[in-house]
Order: sequence, then structure tokens, then C-alpha cells
Amino acid sequence: MGKVSAAFSLKHVLVLSLALNVGLILRFLHEGGAKNLEKENRDTAAGAGAVMASKEAHAGMTSSSSAGAAEAVAGGGDDGSVINLDHGDPTMYERFWQQMGDKTTVVIPGWQYISYFSNVRNLCWFLEPEFANAVVNLHKVVGNAIADDHHIVVGTGSTQLFQAVLYALSPADSSEPMSVVSAAPYYSSYPLQTDYLKSGLYKWAGDAYKFSKDTPYIELVTSPNNPDGSTRQAVVNQSEGIRLHDLAYYWPQYTPISFPADHDIMLFTVSKSTGHAGTRIGWALIRDREIAKKMTKFIEINTIGVSKDSQLRAAKVLQAVSDSYDRDGIPKESKAFFEYGYNLMAERWRNLRAAVNMSGLFSLPDFPVEVCTFSRRAFEPQPAFAWLKCEGEIEDCESFIRKHKILTRGGKHFGVSPKYVRISMLDRDEKFNLFTERLSKIHN
Amino acid sequence: MGKVSAAFSLKHVLVLSLALNVGLILRFLHEGGAKNLEKENRDTAAGAGAVMASKEAHAGMTSSSSAGAAEAVAGGGDDGSVINLDHGDPTMYERFWQQMGDKTTVVIPGWQYISYFSNVRNLCWFLEPEFANAVVNLHKVVGNAIADDHHIVVGTGSTQLFQAVLYALSPADSSEPMSVVSAAPYYSSYPLQTDYLKSGLYKWAGDAYKFSKDTPYIELVTSPNNPDGSTRQAVVNQSEGIRLHDLAYYWPQYTPISFPADHDIMLFTVSKSTGHAGTRIGWALIRDREIAKKMTKFIEINTIGVSKDSQLRAAKVLQAVSDSYDRDGIPKESKAFFEYGYNLMAERWRNLRAAVNMSGLFSLPDFPVEVCTFSRRAFEPQPAFAWLKCEGEIEDCESFIRKHKILTRGGKHFGVSPKYVRISMLDRDEKFNLFTERLSKIHN
Repeated sequence: MGKVSAAFSLKHVLVLSLALNVGLILRFLHEGGAKNLEKENRDTAAGAGAVMASKEAHAGMTSSSSAGAAEAVAGGGDDGSVINLDHGDPTMYERFWQQMGDKTTVVIPGWQYISYFSNVRNLCWFLEPEFANAVVNLHKVVGNAIADDHHIVVGTGSTQLFQAVLYALSPADSSEPMSVVSAAPYYSSYPLQTDYLKSGLYKWAGDAYKFSKDTPYIELVTSPNNPDGSTRQAVVNQSEGIRLHDLAYYWPQYTPISFPADHDIMLFTVSKSTGHAGTRIGWALIRDREIAKKMTKFIEINTIGVSKDSQLRAAKVLQAVSDSYDRDGIPKESKAFFEYGYNLMAERWRNLRAAVNMSGLFSLPDFPVEVCTFSRRAFEPQPAFAWLKCEGEIEDCESFIRKHKILTRGGKHFGVSPKYVRISMLDRDEKFNLFTERLSKIHN
Repeated sequence: MGKVSAAFSLKHVLVLSLALNVGLILRFLHEGGAKNLEKENRDTAAGAGAVMASKEAHAGMTSSSSAGAAEAVAGGGDDGSVINLDHGDPTMYERFWQQMGDKTTVVIPGWQYISYFSNVRNLCWFLEPEFANAVVNLHKVVGNAIADDHHIVVGTGSTQLFQAVLYALSPADSSEPMSVVSAAPYYSSYPLQTDYLKSGLYKWAGDAYKFSKDTPYIELVTSPNNPDGSTRQAVVNQSEGIRLHDLAYYWPQYTPISFPADHDIMLFTVSKSTGHAGTRIGWALIRDREIAKKMTKFIEINTIGVSKDSQLRAAKVLQAVSDSYDRDGIPKESKAFFEYGYNLMAERWRNLRAAVNMSGLFSLPDFPVEVCTFSRRAFEPQPAFAWLKCEGEIEDCESFIRKHKILTRGGKHFGVSPKYVRISMLDRDEKFNLFTERLSKIHN
């Protein structure tokens, strides 16, 4: 028996490793091709022209297609290429998952998960039980949210869940659309996601600090906040309001976990927790059964459920993270996910602060040191985005930095002064290092 | 060399087959568990009560959670359980993909496809090139649509693409919402998907036959039509209209392919072509660049792109279907996908027509025989749904059939008389056979 299983295990490892090899080779070929193309584009659209082409970078994800043409990252030294840090694309985590080998490889046979339904007995009938379990387990390990007595609704990213919450909270028969507010600086996509269909159910009403209408409203509370990393609480204090807590960044690589969140409506996403943005999976923890039911209805109408394949993949990844810690949150392995993320973010923030000091033209927010109940470390938040301010007479920080071919997202998109920009801290090492190097050399 | 690769190939097969075994065992355990649960539920909620519980079945997918409790399918003979054929859940195809073994198994390592982006140089920046290629290849093999000179936009099912089209076609600055119409009987979800957010951009305007306003409008042309299987063309003849062609069922297992469709806006989905509803992948073929761009924008705002995992899986499945035919559309293997689908649908329609004849209370539409350019067969359409009419004095066909514990979707949901019901023809064999058996015995 022992011999058989040893032999099998060898074969298994062999095949999986071969699959990994093929993947690596394909990737190499693919990246080689992409690099050639990049080079070609650089040759034809180099210099100022390329920077001009990327002018609308903050307008959305698509704009990177124009920026991408001249976007390249040097192996060493600054080749003067465009550095696009406008989006929070979490490719920083790629290396960690690569080192984990086949632990989170998913294998899905062609005949499985064909049905629309995951579990017709569940309120959220398209929720894969495996994914739900992985979510509950991870929150237990990290201690960042109470999941047990909440309903879980899975979504195509937390973006879809955000819209599901708005739909669920807005009465269908109201004469006026529900007001949706968030304290500035707020996530730049909230206004567009609320208003793009000109819904009669809900309407973006701007900065929560300035909201004074005495009508029902939904307040979006993002904590840690995107873009500025601050810890937040609701700011509107009226009886008729409902709060949506977007906790996408409430993970121990970004911020000290101070208590398990236990709000009525909480949103999370794999793209910021483990870095799997391409799988498009988020989850909501919802106390009220009727709200969870109406959110499920929204997702049924919007996309008839959520990809099973992605739920399985997300389940595997989340469970692997949980399994690398023991019951007391102590890493069982040398390479535990949150340790990797914490260390890398700490290093990046050190480098960024050093670059900002060298330049002398910018400033960054300061954060209080707190003890993390998960890691037992005392540290100050090291957010997924840097909220950089241009000091002195520079009024339009985004344009100023763009002259140096660094693409960021300006303050006006977040409802505040253009003296600020948001910069992604989650890109690959090469790009991030090039960014700090270039930033440090920007002087008057 | 030959020996090494033979040895490897053996190991490979071994491991994959073992994986399949594990899958089968897990499935067996799972279904065993589910059956026990089903039995338990049946014991407590049997008979008329269960039927009552399923009364709102047509209201949406969620309702099957109530129906599901008493839903069970006997190995042989009629055990009197509820037969839910309200949804078009394509589980009929499960057996085919099972027989195909590991040919369409996807393996995704944990570190791949992490980024939001698939190809920043593509108009649809979240479209996986592999999936796009598979779509083009399949249309070439089947000859059901011209894909080459169209832009491909991938969606979270064609449901999301439908909404993306409405968004793309409706001017943002119009004073009045765009009218959306479709000839009755129309797909029951169109009105809800158009109106659920009370959009100011577009509005459901009902039966296209009754549309007379002289304003811009969008006509939805579903061909073959859901629910009645008829071949369709646009019915509103005004200059200001735009047409969306929903071709979800334009595949050779359902209808003779008579020409490659070449419309401006065409929608397809894997759930009806290959049966993979759980992956939530659809695609749009769009002639106009600006429309494709605006649809991409919609999907960016709605869900920040489409699951990469599911696109890879869909690519593998579509390509496997293409690969099983030679250039002339002749099956290369004994088990080619469309042959399987065609034969099974033909058999089911024969059985259904026989059951209808035996009962004497119902009627079905007749279809003209046509030659299929793909299979070179002459046959009459054998649609994915049966559009059954209660003859004589039965006014509410859905309620009448529900008394026999058969759940269907009544005509009023499709904008026509309640004398009609829509019945899914795509469920598993056991359930479909039980249905025809029971239907044949319904007499006055």
C-alpha cells in the first residue's frame, strides 16, 4: 500500500510539475511576444507622444490600452517608459502563488458544474458550498469579521455585490431614488457604478460630510479607505440611514486587525485579499435574510448567478491561506500568505517614504501604530494605495507626475482637491521599484 | 524517446483518470447525501403540500429552492414526485461530457490569470485570446455566424451582454428612455432584465407587433425563438430601429442551420450551445467598433470584466467541439458533440409528440423540414423548449399541469395566453422520461 501510494504520488507530482513547466514555457513565450510588441510600440510611439496617449488613463480600465502601448519595465535602471499605477491590479501577489507550486491548482473536468444551480436549498442558490466554507474558515483564522451568523452571498467581484446591495435596499415603489453617499475622499468608481444606468431606485448624492437631506440614504463606509488608507466609521448621523461596509482592504497585510467586524452589510473580495482579480469573485456577509434574498435576486437578473469555476478556484485559494495557519494564527509554514504580503508591503512603504523624502515635493499620510490581533505585531497601516499630495505650488498633481511618465489617479475623481493622487502599491516588483526610483529624482 | 513519452503518457492518463475517479466518488457521495436529504424532505413535505410550495416556480430561479424540496426522480416508474421543467437547465449534456473523459478538463495553477487584464491592446481588454480564437473557430466549423469581421465581446453569460447592448445603444443624454420591444411570445426574462433598475436609458415597451411609436427603439429578435422555437425576423419596420439578434439556440442540435448569420449585433452563450450553464460565459459578435467599446465599458462598470477561469474552460470546451469535426463538417470521431445533441433531441421530440398524442389534451407547434448546411440532414426544428398548448376548455395550462406535479412556465410570462406553457427539453434523461410518461397519462 505504502509503495503504491508513494509511486502514485511520484507520478502525480511529475505530471503536475510537467503541467507547471508547460505553463511556464507558454508564459515565457507569451511574455516574450508581448515584450517584442511592446518594444515595437515604444519605437514608434516613444517619448512625449506616448505620454499624451495615456492622458485619459484615469477615465477607466480601458484607457490602459493606450497607455499600455508604451508601458514597459526595465530590468535595471530607468528606461524612461510609462509607469501605469492608475489601477489597483494586484499582480504583486503573483510571485507568492508561483512559489506555492500546485497547492492551489484547480482541476475541473468538463462534465462537472454544468447546471445553473449550486444548492437549491440555499437562499443564495448559486453559492458553491465549498466556497462558503472557505470564507467562513478564513474569517475565523484571521478574525477580521464575524461570518457565522451572516448569510453569504457570492458575487462577480464585490463590484456586482455593491450594486446588489443598492438594489436590495432601495424600495421599488419609492417616488424618489434613494441617496447614496460616502465621505470624501471616496472610491472613484462609486459615483459611476451608482449612476451609469440612471436608475430610478438610487442616485449618487456625493460627499457624506455634506449630506443633509432628511430622507432615507445609504452610506458607503470603506475601511481601510480607498484611496487614503484611513480607518473609517459612518459620518452621517441620521436615523433613516443604512450602512454598507466595504471591507475589501481589512486584511492583515494592509492594516492591523483590531476587532472582528460585525456589521449588517459587509463586502469582501479575493482581488484585494489574495490578489486573484482575474477570477472576479467577491462575497457579502449579510445579517438580514430579506436583504440577502433580494441581493441574490439582483445577481439572478444581472448574470443568472456567479461562475462556478471561479468559486471553486477562490475556495481553493482561500482554504490554502487558512490551512497555512494554526488555530492561534501562527504560521505553520515558512511561506504563509499574510507574512509574505505584510513584509512586502512594509518594504514598499519604507521605500516609498524614502523616495518622497528624497524628492521633497510630496507628502504622504501618517498612520497611528496599532496592535494586530491576528499577527500580534504593532505596526502602522501600509495601504494598498498611496495617497500622495503635491506640496507647494503644484495644483494638479496628476498632470505634474504624468510629465514624468507616471500614471496615477487624481484627487478630483475621489471628490477632493487635485493636489492629491492615488497610486497603486500592488504592482509587480520591477514596476514598483522603477516608480520609487523615478519619484525620488523629481525635484523642482 | 518513444519509450519515455509512452511512459509519461501512461502516467498522465493514470493521474487524470484517478482525478476523474475521485470526482466520480465525490459526486456519488454528494448525490447520495442529497438524495437522503431529498427523501427526508419528501417524507415531511410530501404530496399536495409540496406542490403548493412550488406554486411560485415561474417567478424566478430561486423558487426552485421551494420546489426542490420535493423534487426527485425515480429510477423506474412514476413515484409521484415533482418534476420541475420551469428552467432551461441544460443538464442533458452532462452525460456527453462525462463520456469525453479528460478532453475538456481545465487545469489552472494558482498564480496564473491573477490580473484584471487579458490583453490591454484589445478593445475588449478582459477577453482571453484563447477564448476568442475558440469562438471564431467554432463558428467557422458550424457555419452559423460570420465572426471574422465582427468584434468579440465576452460576457458573464449572454444575460450580461444583453444589458450591455441596451446600455451601448441608449444615448446618455436622451430626454426619454429608449423603447425595447420583442414579438410575443418573447423570452420571459427580457421585461425584467430591462426594467429591474428603473433605468432612465431604456424601458420595456412590450410586444413588437403592437409597437407604433415613431421614436428610436431596440427590437430583440430571438431566433430560434425562446419559448416557441420558431425562426424569426424583425417585425417592426421603422427607420430608427436597431436590432439585437439573440442566437442562443442557433445550433445544429436544435434547428437546421440555413445560412451564416451576419447581423450587426449577435449574442451567443455556452449554456445552450454546449450546456455549460454554470460557467456563465456568453459572447457577442458586434460589427460596430463604438458599440463594442461601449458594451465593454458596461461590463467594466458592472463587474470589472469577466472571469478568466471560465473563459479558459469555455475555450477548451468550444475548441474540443470544433476539433471533433473536419473541414467539411464531417465528424472525425464516433462521439461528436452535435451528433449526440441532435440524436437526443430528435428522440425526445418523438417521445414528447407520442405522449401528447396519447393524452389528447395538448398540442405542439409544427415546424417545416429544412436542410441543414452543417449536417446535410433534412429535419424539422427540435427546440430546447416545448411550447405546449392546452386544448379545449383548459384556460390556465400551467395550473392544470401543476396539478400533476409538473412545473412549467405559463404563457402570460411570455406576453401571450395562459393556454400555453413552456417546458424545458434539456434536463437529465430520468426526469425527461418521467415527464413524458406522466404527460401521456393525463386525460380529462
